[in-house]
This record gives sequence, structure tokens and C-alpha cells, in this order.
Amino acid sequence: MLASKLMAARALVLLGCGWIARRHAAAARRLGIPLLAASRDLARARAFAREFGAADAFGAYEDAVRDPRAAGAIVCTPHDRHLRDALTALEAGLHVLVEKPIAPRLAEVDRMVGVADAAGRILMVAENFRFMPAFRHVHRLIASGRLGELRELHLVARGYRRPGGWRLDVGASGGGVLIDAGIHHVHNLRWWGGEPRRVFALAPPRTVALGGEDAVDLLAELPGGVVGFLSNSLGARGLPRVQWSTVTGTAGTSLADNRGRWVLLRGERGTRLSLFFRDTRGHLALLRAFDEAMRTGRAPEADGAAGRRDLAVVLAAYRSLAERRPVDVEC
Amino acid sequence: MLASKLMAARALVLLGCGWIARRHAAAARRLGIPLLAASRDLARARAFAREFGAADAFGAYEDAVRDPRAAGAIVCTPHDRHLRDALTALEAGLHVLVEKPIAPRLAEVDRMVGVADAAGRILMVAENFRFMPAFRHVHRLIASGRLGELRELHLVARGYRRPGGWRLDVGASGGGVLIDAGIHHVHNLRWWGGEPRRVFALAPPRTVALGGEDAVDLLAELPGGVVGFLSNSLGARGLPRVQWSTVTGTAGTSLADNRGRWVLLRGERGTRLSLFFRDTRGHLALLRAFDEAMRTGRAPEADGAAGRRDLAVVLAAYRSLAERRPVDVEC
Repeated sequence: MLASKLMAARALVLLGCGWIARRHAAAARRLGIPLLAASRDLARARAFAREFGAADAFGAYEDAVRDPRAAGAIVCTPHDRHLRDALTALEAGLHVLVEKPIAPRLAEVDRMVGVADAAGRILMVAENFRFMPAFRHVHRLIASGRLGELRELHLVARGYRRPGGWRLDVGASGGGVLIDAGIHHVHNLRWWGGEPRRVFALAPPRTVALGGEDAVDLLAELPGGVVGFLSNSLGARGLPRVQWSTVTGTAGTSLADNRGRWVLLRGERGTRLSLFFRDTRGHLALLRAFDEAMRTGRAPEADGAAGRRDLAVVLAAYRSLAERRPVDVEC
Repeated sequence: MLASKLMAARALVLLGCGWIARRHAAAARRLGIPLLAASRDLARARAFAREFGAADAFGAYEDAVRDPRAAGAIVCTPHDRHLRDALTALEAGLHVLVEKPIAPRLAEVDRMVGVADAAGRILMVAENFRFMPAFRHVHRLIASGRLGELRELHLVARGYRRPGGWRLDVGASGGGVLIDAGIHHVHNLRWWGGEPRRVFALAPPRTVALGGEDAVDLLAELPGGVVGFLSNSLGARGLPRVQWSTVTGTAGTSLADNRGRWVLLRGERGTRLSLFFRDTRGHLALLRAFDEAMRTGRAPEADGAAGRRDLAVVLAAYRSLAERRPVDVEC
């Protein structure tokens, strides 16, 4: 009975059953973590629960988070719902993993972090880039000095897509491509290059229906004069699918496949190709880290503060676009 | 006698016998254009003349430009000498082809253009990128609408080199990598994307001995809200040699090999690879254009005004680096 209760209290509640919830559900299943599926549409939650073998399905988030089997919640709702859904889970005593962006406004993140801290609960942002083996390899190359002193980071991820649903509503999404897909690369920029101090951004006229910009090009001043360039687009037709993130230092350059399957190191000591086959998108490692944080109470790598800093860079870029000038990143 | 005099008056005087003079000499030889070699070091001029079959060698530019066989001069001297060497040739009645940058200061270009105009002589900048078959192909793709409405240009050319000689002296070069190699890509940015209105540039700390910056990353506001990104470096270790310039429009993207051997068009109507085998660096076409301009009196494509506009973008970028703000490009 005790064992089964402990087992039961490991369950994760999925708040929202959209595309990204499917990724988390698949990862939870592989890790043997029990799931509870919640959607404001009960039929949708039930179908999702059947597909992913979730223990139960709920038509109201408030009910799901109070289920005694639940230990944590994963917030997979539109950006403008992250705060209230995270608070719903925190107030029910759950730990919370929130999809990126952690919220569309800094004040919302502060509220979320404050409530989690006061409740002694884990707050983590679902930044899978942080857990991708290829990107962790890049971080090790930088930290170990294999690239020498950093000089430039070029993070380019451009393609063509026509999103639908709430992403067309800037009130729900808080912006365009940068706050949605681009924030992953903002995280890498910070993680690899250090905290951006100042950013300058340009965006071409929007051609794809979207709540905000459909493309952005951004220069960032990083610590020590390192230069960051970040380019994201979902309005770029004809770009090859294989694209990579380039980190250049005084001793060499790493080129990391944006989909996490390889890293090429070229430098003074020759060329080395590293291939990655397992969990290339980091969803398993992300969920494992959340699970471990819940069990140990230790802050995970991608905590609320990290999510806040990613957001601060995005918002500085948006202000730069609006005011046509370089903008200091809020600390 | 008349025929031989006409033939003789086609000769080009090379002012300076350095690396780039060799490219022009090789092209002149292939085109059957007679050469006169001039260096302030007569022995160097003689060795050069022997190697490239030049008709004569001179130890003083003033003597070379007054040779009755000369019709034009190619100024291949350090940047800070371009004005005075161009004037020496113009004052002797010659047409002038000046290496890039046409000069390191706008006032110098204005003087050069004014003297050439007053003398009724051709003034051309040796911007070989303008004559590279691959880059002309890109321009045709844009002009024909194959890419749709332009959105973004990403012109990235980074590598590792340790220049020597006068390039270590900012007084002679007028700057670093951007005014030297980078200005080629500035020309493409303007040619393909239209006149930049405003630029913002960042440069990492210099690590390669050079008169100015050894790397630069630049965002440019182009007409119609098109975004230009230009990155040049000679302090980037480990970059692959194969790099390309990417032009993205609403209907597709062209990727042009920076060394001019191929252009890949990917778009709504499929993928098409164009290969280029002849005169890939455009030196023959450049010299042919200069020769034709001399014969017809018609302004060449890369005239003094074009050289001035390329320089204006470079100088705006330098001001942006110095003042840490976006800078309007001087018209």
C-alpha cells in the first residue's frame, strides 16, 4: 500500500494535450512515469490518455492537479495561460514544469517564481535544448577551453511553416517566432556565450500569418565583447533543412546540427565529428531532470530564473524592434 | 604604324606589383591587353614584368603613366595611396581602375570622381564580385522575381588569415577586415538588396594583428524593410572553406558559393543547381568591362559612385562600432 502510494505520487499531470504535450507524454512513458491527462475538452483528454496510456483523464485542470496520484504538472497551454495554470498546480502542492516561454511577461514570471519559492516547489522551464546531448557537448567544448576564448556565436534556424490556432493571436503568444521557437536559441546563446547585455534586432515585413514577427535577426553584445548573432524565421522559403549553430573561439569552431544529431569540431588540433543517436531532442533528459528535481528538491538546470532570463532577452529584442535602437537586457 | 600606335595605346599601367596586381596581370594577358608594370621598387617591377610578359617596367609611377603606350592605369597600392596614385594617372590623361576600397575616406572619393569627370576619363572600382558569373546569376534571380519579394540577405564570409605589411597600419588601410575583404560583400549587399539606410555593427575583441577590426557582424536596414546581415572575419579558426551567401525572398532562397562556383536555387518551383567554371572570380570580366568603358566612354557598372556607396556603408559600420549605436548611411 505504501509502495503503491509512493508510486502513485510520482504521476505528472499534463495541462493541455496539444503537440508538445505529446512529446512529454512519450518521454514519460519511456521513463515509466505515470501520467494524468487534462484538457479543457474532456473528450480530447480521454483520447490523449488512451493513446499514451495515461492513468486518467480530466476535463478541468483544477480537478487534475488535486488528484492524489499527482506529484507534478507540465504546463502545455498557450503562453498567456502559463501563469494561471502554473499557479493552479502550485497551489495544489505540485511541482511545475512550464513550456517555453515560461510566460510572456517578466512580471508573470516573477509571480510564478515567488509562489513556487514560497511553496517550496520546483519550478522548471521545459527548455529541451538545455538537455540535448549535442548542445551539452558544445557547452563542454566551450567550458573545457577547446575553442579557446569565445569570439562569435552564429545561431541560425530558418524555415517555412504556417502555424495556426492561438499562435495567430499576439495576446495569447506574446509575440512571433522569437518568443516561440526562437527562445530555444536564445537559451543556447546565453548558456554558451553568457548573459547578453544589449541586443539590436531587425525583422523583415511579415508575410506569414502570425501573432508577431515571422522572422528576426538579432545581434547581441555578450560578456567580454563576444558577439552573438541569432536569426530565426518561419517565413523563409527554400532554406535547407540541415542547419547548424556555429560557435567560434580563438582556437577553433564548433558546428552543431540544430536537430542535435552531430557536432563538428574544427580547430588547431584537427577535426572531430561527434554523432548523437539517443534522445537527440533531449525530451527524455529534460523529464528525467524534472523528476530528479522533484525527488531531491534541488533546483534543476533550467529553473524559473533561467526561463526569466531567456524571456528578458526576447523582450529586449522586441523593444529593439519597436524602438529601432539597441536595448539593454533587463536583469 | 597607325595600327601599331592604336594597339600600343591600349596598354594598362599597373601601379603597384603586389598580390592583386598579379590577378589583373594574368587577366590582361589572357585578354591580350598589353601591360606596363610600375613599382616604387624598380627591381620588383622588372621581375613582375618578366613574369607576366609586360611590355615595360618602371620604378616611378609618374614615368609609367606618361608612357605613350598607356591608355589606363590600375591602382593596386595601399588604400591610403589610392587617391594620389589615381590622380597621378588621371592627370596624365589615363582612365583609372582603382582597387577596392576606392579610397578610405569619402572626401577622397569625391575628389577622385571630380577630377575624373572634369578630365572626361573613366573611373572604375575593381569590384570583381560585381563581375562574378555566380553573383550575376543571383542578381538575375532577384531581378526576375524568382525569389519573390526579398526578405533577408545573409552574407557570411569567415576564415583565418594573418595579413602582413601595410594592412597592419590603420593609417594605410583605413580599417580592418570590413574595408578590405568585407567591402566585396558590402557591394553584394547593396547590389542585391538595395542601398542600406542604417547599419548596426559589433566586433569581437581583436586577436589577429591588423590595422582595424579582425571580425565584424553587421545588420543593415535595406529598402522595403529587407534585412541584411553581413559577417566577415579573418580571425575565425575552424570555419569550413565552403561558405555561401543566402538571399531569401517570399518565393525561395538562393545560396551562392562565396568563391563563385555554384548557385543553388530552392523555392516554390523546386531546386536548381547552377555551376560556373569560367572566370569564377570575375577578373576577366572586370578587365573586359574596364577596357570597353575606356573604348566607348560609357560609365562601367562599378563606377566611382558605386565605389563611394560601398565605402559609405563601411564607414557607417565603423561609426556604429565606435559609437555603439545604429548609424544612418551617408548618401
